[in-house]
Amino acid sequence: MTDRLAQQLGFLREAEKLKSVYRATALPDQSRRENSAEHSWSVALYALILQDQAGEGVDIARAITMLLLHDLVEIDVGDVPIHAQGGSAHSSAAVKEAEERAAARLFGLLPEGQAEQMLAIWLEFEGGVTPTALYARALDRVQPVLLNHAGGGGSWREYDVSFDQLEERVGVKVARGLPALWQAVREHVKPWFVSHGKA
Amino acid sequence: MTDRLAQQLGFLREAEKLKSVYRATALPDQSRRENSAEHSWSVALYALILQDQAGEGVDIARAITMLLLHDLVEIDVGDVPIHAQGGSAHSSAAVKEAEERAAARLFGLLPEGQAEQMLAIWLEFEGGVTPTALYARALDRVQPVLLNHAGGGGSWREYDVSFDQLEERVGVKVARGLPALWQAVREHVKPWFVSHGKA
Repeated sequence: MTDRLAQQLGFLREAEKLKSVYRATALPDQSRRENSAEHSWSVALYALILQDQAGEGVDIARAITMLLLHDLVEIDVGDVPIHAQGGSAHSSAAVKEAEERAAARLFGLLPEGQAEQMLAIWLEFEGGVTPTALYARALDRVQPVLLNHAGGGGSWREYDVSFDQLEERVGVKVARGLPALWQAVREHVKPWFVSHGKA
Repeated sequence: MTDRLAQQLGFLREAEKLKSVYRATALPDQSRRENSAEHSWSVALYALILQDQAGEGVDIARAITMLLLHDLVEIDVGDVPIHAQGGSAHSSAAVKEAEERAAARLFGLLPEGQAEQMLAIWLEFEGGVTPTALYARALDRVQPVLLNHAGGGGSWREYDVSFDQLEERVGVKVARGLPALWQAVREHVKPWFVSHGKA
């Protein structure tokens, strides 16, 4: 086996650990929490299926790549739920710094050249500036909303989330990349908040 | 919400069920079996990372799309382990027919046009003729081998698999798309079979 292949297989073996990182959101049947590996599959599938929602300048294949890679840092850092601690933990400087260290370690397992290439894609996603990153980030945010809705409230119940909080913590970010999609999803989920006295 | 978007979100919601389809292969730490959604993420990541192994005519983005979609039929049919019933169940005509019915139902949830497009990608994967399908199929076969090896034998123990059986049921299929990769993986895993008296 070449060194190059050994490094690539080493990275892929390390990536298996993402299957043991659990998120706040549960499966629709509430049987268990979703893990970050299967969440990554979901959002990559979203990027494929919802591609006609993408605006100009979005590279769908690159968005899918971003979404396959975006959560790998959680192998070291864990998932930080968006509704935890009133929404403040998720974007803290400490979490950001820990995720950057994790990205350096994980992508650093890959051969030279490929390591830098994959890190650049992850950084583009994190930066959230390019149309492709905005598209990918919007999908990453909207899938848990639909999952919670499909599961009768899911982590909205656990974290006592109101419709205004959803709008503020999640909606604004989805709308940045996919305004029409957020408009539609917003109307779709609002009745749940109304009927639970949270809107 | 437009009908088109409602259909797409309906498909994505149905796809969530793949997270509850469990495979024969366990995670490396043997804590639980792998499900087909996270397996799909793994093999899509393999397609991305191992792209320098791909031969001429392989479209990496299309291979990733294939691998995101390839197991959805298991929502209706379940996973048929490759080593079950001496390797004969996996490729039976009855399974193939059931999977084709499942593909028609599942992709049929999508809007017209997109349904046919996704079904065509799934059929290309199933056909295993194009360079892209051969690449994707080889990765789909090799990931469980590396997972079993990382997990100290995993489902090889359960199904009492010998090195010759691995070669015959799996190796031949991996080598069809990625001969050099199989050569390397074969040498990498052989010592396990030797040390367990199965080679």
